[in-house]
Amino acid sequence: MPDTLYDVVILGSGPGGLQAAIHASRKKARTLMLGRMDNSSLYWAHVENYCCQIKISGEEVLKTGRKQAESFGAEFRDEDVLAIEPDGPLFSLKLESGDEIKSKTIILATGSSRNKLNVPGEKELLGKGVSYCVDCDAGFYKGEVVAVAGCRSAAAGGAVALTNFASQVHLYCGELDVNEKLRQQLVETGVVLHEGVTIKEIQGENAVQSVLLDDGSTQAVSGVFIELGAKGVLELTAMLGVRLDENMKYIDADKKQRTNVPGVYAAGDICGPPLQMAKAVGEGCVAGIEAAGYAKKLETA
Amino acid sequence: MPDTLYDVVILGSGPGGLQAAIHASRKKARTLMLGRMDNSSLYWAHVENYCCQIKISGEEVLKTGRKQAESFGAEFRDEDVLAIEPDGPLFSLKLESGDEIKSKTIILATGSSRNKLNVPGEKELLGKGVSYCVDCDAGFYKGEVVAVAGCRSAAAGGAVALTNFASQVHLYCGELDVNEKLRQQLVETGVVLHEGVTIKEIQGENAVQSVLLDDGSTQAVSGVFIELGAKGVLELTAMLGVRLDENMKYIDADKKQRTNVPGVYAAGDICGPPLQMAKAVGEGCVAGIEAAGYAKKLETA
Repeated sequence: MPDTLYDVVILGSGPGGLQAAIHASRKKARTLMLGRMDNSSLYWAHVENYCCQIKISGEEVLKTGRKQAESFGAEFRDEDVLAIEPDGPLFSLKLESGDEIKSKTIILATGSSRNKLNVPGEKELLGKGVSYCVDCDAGFYKGEVVAVAGCRSAAAGGAVALTNFASQVHLYCGELDVNEKLRQQLVETGVVLHEGVTIKEIQGENAVQSVLLDDGSTQAVSGVFIELGAKGVLELTAMLGVRLDENMKYIDADKKQRTNVPGVYAAGDICGPPLQMAKAVGEGCVAGIEAAGYAKKLETA
Repeated sequence: MPDTLYDVVILGSGPGGLQAAIHASRKKARTLMLGRMDNSSLYWAHVENYCCQIKISGEEVLKTGRKQAESFGAEFRDEDVLAIEPDGPLFSLKLESGDEIKSKTIILATGSSRNKLNVPGEKELLGKGVSYCVDCDAGFYKGEVVAVAGCRSAAAGGAVALTNFASQVHLYCGELDVNEKLRQQLVETGVVLHEGVTIKEIQGENAVQSVLLDDGSTQAVSGVFIELGAKGVLELTAMLGVRLDENMKYIDADKKQRTNVPGVYAAGDICGPPLQMAKAVGEGCVAGIEAAGYAKKLETA
């Protein structure tokens, strides 16, 4: 096999991709994982709901997983992919460094890039009170006052869910766009709805302390949940002709993690909710095994 | 909510069930996990291919996962379920201890291990007269002579049930280990009990024709039921009407881990290969979140 030909190339640097790398390389597939570790949203997170580890930093998870996958023979390159195209039964990939490689299979595991508020403090306080995932992080805010930004069901539903933990939940939103039932639930659960008010800045030194609002007032909070909906189509999937789901938000993969394009698999948040590490590794496991099997078959075809 | 009513009851003691318990209890669902920890095949294993832990004993994984789930409010009972039945929109469960509980949802996560006889012909004639599930297959043996292998309640109870269909039922068993009531039922229903006699081989070309016994004799039968466990999970699924896959080996769950029965979910090895811890926790995550959501909806319906 030429030095630049792989059985399995994994795009993405999170836990789904790592689990795929572990399983593919254990099946003796030549496996390469592409992406910067700190591009994974997990890198900045604390994990407490992944079986069976009590509490662990995302950075530690990723570093351990990488060491583990390397021990089975997987290779890693800290760079992104600029372009992918089909090349007979193979795929050609052009990397940031200018290098070109080929692979028999591709596993898309780049996560779900979320819409940002784009306000000062958002990036700086990510993982220090700023979160993009109520399901992941609500439990950290027991008895605290929190803010939610967003106008659609993700934000309103998230605000309702947060009332199980937080002492007070403020929902900031230009114009609420949810059905009557959900609007009613906001009332019933005591969410403080600020319609027509938006967050201008997230304030705090090493942790979120308050939000500055566009009406000039300030609200003290210890957490800000940004739930604007996940971002749309990935350019790379478009290059491959990979089909997305009906909302054009996530990749439409089957139970074997196959996409509509033979040889192209997907795993983790890119396949849709729940956006959880446990689900990502489960799908990575299946994708890694399936991709390795596909590459093996191609070899003997 | 009465003390004996749960939102989510999980059958099984492995990592898929634990991950389901973690996610369901974090969603504030009242969650109970049933089963003995050392019944999980993982308990006896070493894990090295699960992201992101380098090497860990199965026992440690399970103990940590249990502590973790308990920290979110999940409850545990070290006992099995003897019977489940639908009860309006709920499910009623009868436990080994004699206690009865109710639940809004059930998650089946009892793994795939079926106790084998490990005799020639068993594997070859599976589905051709060899069965591991009386409740599933008894109806195929109207007017036939059948054998049952096993010494405990599943075997003796299965033999009794088979007398409703078969013309003659032979029960082969080293030493019968059942209560007096069940022993009496064997007599009353005319089961032919061969205590101290075991099956050495299952014979037949494309269908079971006879069993060879360890006393050197042969008995003509057209079916052999292997019931070496306590209550088999396939029987529980049969009680619920849960659909299996075409080979009658695994539960047919969709990507949301739903079975065909509303309120009943499945996760882990019981859903089929790859039989990997990573896949089990991924499915457990989804099942736990989905079941908690279903229970919540039932509440407000």
